[in-house]
Amino acid sequence: MAILTVLGAGMMGSSLCVPLVDRGHDVRLVGTHLDAEIVQSLKRDHTHPKLKLELPHAIRPFYLEELDAAMAGADAILLGVSSAGVTWAGTAIADYVTAQRPILMVSKGLSFEGGRLRVLPDVLRDSLPPEKAGGVQPAAVAGPCIAGELARRVDTCVVFTGRNQPELDRLKAWIGGGYYHVFTSTDVVGVEACAALKNAYAMGIAFASGLHARAGGEPGSIATHNYEAGVFAQAIVEMQLLVKVIGGSPNSAIGLAGVGDLNVTCNGGRTGRFGRLLGMGLGVEESIRRMEGATLECLEILAALERALPVLLAAGSVRGDQLPLLEHMIAVALHDAPVAMPFDAFHPASSLS
Amino acid sequence: MAILTVLGAGMMGSSLCVPLVDRGHDVRLVGTHLDAEIVQSLKRDHTHPKLKLELPHAIRPFYLEELDAAMAGADAILLGVSSAGVTWAGTAIADYVTAQRPILMVSKGLSFEGGRLRVLPDVLRDSLPPEKAGGVQPAAVAGPCIAGELARRVDTCVVFTGRNQPELDRLKAWIGGGYYHVFTSTDVVGVEACAALKNAYAMGIAFASGLHARAGGEPGSIATHNYEAGVFAQAIVEMQLLVKVIGGSPNSAIGLAGVGDLNVTCNGGRTGRFGRLLGMGLGVEESIRRMEGATLECLEILAALERALPVLLAAGSVRGDQLPLLEHMIAVALHDAPVAMPFDAFHPASSLS
Repeated sequence: MAILTVLGAGMMGSSLCVPLVDRGHDVRLVGTHLDAEIVQSLKRDHTHPKLKLELPHAIRPFYLEELDAAMAGADAILLGVSSAGVTWAGTAIADYVTAQRPILMVSKGLSFEGGRLRVLPDVLRDSLPPEKAGGVQPAAVAGPCIAGELARRVDTCVVFTGRNQPELDRLKAWIGGGYYHVFTSTDVVGVEACAALKNAYAMGIAFASGLHARAGGEPGSIATHNYEAGVFAQAIVEMQLLVKVIGGSPNSAIGLAGVGDLNVTCNGGRTGRFGRLLGMGLGVEESIRRMEGATLECLEILAALERALPVLLAAGSVRGDQLPLLEHMIAVALHDAPVAMPFDAFHPASSLS
Repeated sequence: MAILTVLGAGMMGSSLCVPLVDRGHDVRLVGTHLDAEIVQSLKRDHTHPKLKLELPHAIRPFYLEELDAAMAGADAILLGVSSAGVTWAGTAIADYVTAQRPILMVSKGLSFEGGRLRVLPDVLRDSLPPEKAGGVQPAAVAGPCIAGELARRVDTCVVFTGRNQPELDRLKAWIGGGYYHVFTSTDVVGVEACAALKNAYAMGIAFASGLHARAGGEPGSIATHNYEAGVFAQAIVEMQLLVKVIGGSPNSAIGLAGVGDLNVTCNGGRTGRFGRLLGMGLGVEESIRRMEGATLECLEILAALERALPVLLAAGSVRGDQLPLLEHMIAVALHDAPVAMPFDAFHPASSLS
């Protein structure tokens, strides 16, 4: 048995506690300042208001003010904060970070800083005090995982990625097993870039469903699946290129973190609903309004990529004709252009890997 | 304008006529001996009974007995027969084959003959009289295309594959345009192997939906999508390996013919429904019965692969631990084993390409 402390009681952080307690660990789930109501609910009757589910009673909930107690003796720190909260989390956990205590993040995102795109484990490391950062290589979870399904113990395959293979093996030995199938990869940049990029590309794939609805079509096996699949294939081609440009392996775009996560994101979740609204022609403002405050990672990712693109083009890392789908998604989701998929600019029969 | 003669008036052959007439060609659709009722219906009022759709009136339907008239002056021959009909088709069109008349097939399948797996363009070529076969390199269509969507002019991306690039370019110039987006590849073996394999793998992905239904679950964004996506990623890994073993490029498994077609097959069509029935635990016989006579390409492909596997293993082309998903699908769909996905034998973070 290990003592595992999860900071961030949102849907993903809380869901991850289910396999952890099922493996018999002492699991402490600490809410951030945004999660006070969730913690209150968990302390009261173990129900998670966002997951709409009673969680296993063995999960021990803590308010942020109780972080000290929750971290006492922890064998590992797990971060379930949103991408926007990563720098905050670095400060919050700084006192508890040691070289013997692995960090595993579920946050997914890409940050554009200092003229380059960076993955979140590296952003977290930089947010730690220099004397702590030296001995630490934060690991992260990627791959296809809808939180509500993990919390219901649906078979789930994920990738633990980090630069320290023995640490990945230790985390896998603690956490993997039963319905939670853990694979490992040391391609942190590739795996984490895919984890972020898939949110943007899933939005573009979902345009099709919105166009179909707008034309009066019903869901079913005859809809706009051909359109979706053409965009899906192009998405993988562009993800491979972007991953390579950022310094990862294009092969990661073919594994769980790439094709796997893109597949699941198209089948469930916020990003697809948002892309569908854009495809229906509702415009950016109205589409955001209808999402009722849900975090839209796709907009954050696209904004980072929009800032990065001129730098990548100027450096010759990409050519102007290589990312037609990304450019169209930026035009639609950030600048209110109408959806008009540039299929004939695609190059989906080719591959970079 | 070209004269294009399509042999085979099933759903895919007939749907392909829609972009052909939209491009202004003289399009002649010839039914096989299995399609007499379809031709009758088309001659009567242009409706296709299987597509349940009125087709453009410019499509000219012919009975098989009128093949001679339909072939007169044809610039290209398109084959819309099922995989089982390819050898028959080779005999039927033999008199009309010339080196100046490209052949484009929509049939998808893998054949195990003479101790090796072969793609259908090569099977067709061998079924032609030797004096004809010499000058001919049949091309084929792959990629994500639900026939009923193409017939309704949904944007569709496909790959024309063949060994003769100028001929592919000529076919693309004739047929591509508008909503029918054509890309080309000379990796016939890789592209066509993917076109076949995806039917088998889509069946395995659909097990999840059946397990979910059996457990009393409703369709929705919280279902068994994590399970599906884990299998999807492993499917791409195994498709890459099989493509390579058969002599194609693993990269074709990443393009439209691979990830694209696997994606669309999971969203529509027979194969998914059949896999779902198996996942529900109905057993092979009852599952086939409930499909009401629909062609189940997945069973043909799995049977060919089951015969090929011992040969591939003996030759050292694959190792015994590399295709756990394929072996499980063979056990379930051909030998009535219960569904018990071997997730922990997967290796979905790796890639071969």
